[in-house]
Amino acid sequence: MNYPSRLIEDAVSEISRLPGIGKKTALRLALHLLKREEAQTLSLSEALVNMRTKTTYCRKCHNIADDILCNICGNFKRDQTIICVVVDTRDVLAIEATSQYRGLYHVLGGIISPLEGIGPADLKIDSLLARVDPEGSEETDKVQEIILALSPTMEGDTTAFYLQKKLKPTGVKVSTIARGVPIGGDLEYADEITLGRSIVSRVAYD
Amino acid sequence: MNYPSRLIEDAVSEISRLPGIGKKTALRLALHLLKREEAQTLSLSEALVNMRTKTTYCRKCHNIADDILCNICGNFKRDQTIICVVVDTRDVLAIEATSQYRGLYHVLGGIISPLEGIGPADLKIDSLLARVDPEGSEETDKVQEIILALSPTMEGDTTAFYLQKKLKPTGVKVSTIARGVPIGGDLEYADEITLGRSIVSRVAYD
Repeated sequence: MNYPSRLIEDAVSEISRLPGIGKKTALRLALHLLKREEAQTLSLSEALVNMRTKTTYCRKCHNIADDILCNICGNFKRDQTIICVVVDTRDVLAIEATSQYRGLYHVLGGIISPLEGIGPADLKIDSLLARVDPEGSEETDKVQEIILALSPTMEGDTTAFYLQKKLKPTGVKVSTIARGVPIGGDLEYADEITLGRSIVSRVAYD
Repeated sequence: MNYPSRLIEDAVSEISRLPGIGKKTALRLALHLLKREEAQTLSLSEALVNMRTKTTYCRKCHNIADDILCNICGNFKRDQTIICVVVDTRDVLAIEATSQYRGLYHVLGGIISPLEGIGPADLKIDSLLARVDPEGSEETDKVQEIILALSPTMEGDTTAFYLQKKLKPTGVKVSTIARGVPIGGDLEYADEITLGRSIVSRVAYD
């Protein structure tokens, strides 16, 4: 395509490197920015650079952070005795959006997947064990429970199994998020495996 | 939502101001950039700022340009005797993508729309007339034809009608892009107005 301006061509080509954004969408976004105030483009650009260059990882939970500790680990109002283990930041945000959890997190940074060559050593597992069983210290806020919030896939189950085995010697309580038919879902459309498991793992009314 | 980092929150909020991009997509894009090389974010950001701050409008056709003239007006291999009138840069790019047109353009910058309060004076119509009928100069490349490439909507038809009236005294040939059933489209699914017009404006085989 003959772009009228090389600067637009450059911008379109950079925008279209983002996932799920093709040349047409990129052009639409570029023309949108051209129509708006210059300040909008400048603040977008500054926010992107600041995010990329100034964020770091939380020393405690390995989540993305602005400082040594992320906003969640740094919030002492949260329950320090319970840790929810997730794969990445997106999972943290998904759980935070539910407003149902007030404990801390631990971001593994991946999932055990022999096919992709990712083994336990590539994940933040040692630091999880260290959080559960701090050496030689009598902490007041000792971790009481680990919730494994991993996807119900083969990789997720493998990782959960590995973590359970590793956590067993520490004596901490280990749980997993419930699996079953999704709320609002029609039983008719639930797949057999999910429906089967939801019968096996049925919950008694109190 | 509790973002783990204020810098990410800022970036997500800036990205989601773009049209068609919600908070979830914005977060996905932000996390994607965080995973990639820092250089990608820096060059994206630089390309956006350069595009916004350094582009200007072509003195001749009002298309977006890097310099006084856009790449198309500045290309003297193009046919200088024919001008295609369009609404905005997107239309120029759509026509350029067809590789069927080798003349110049004229970007109106909008379309006559009484409902939105856009009148002829808000569009680049005077400069179009000036290009067709340059005062007191005997140009070698005098404009021979004006093609109106406006959308077949009420606003487009109104604008086309107005331009025809204005261009009539100059004696230049004025044409419009063909309207009819789209190529590859099934007759059965063409709307009545389009199909009716395509019969009225039928084209004889040579």
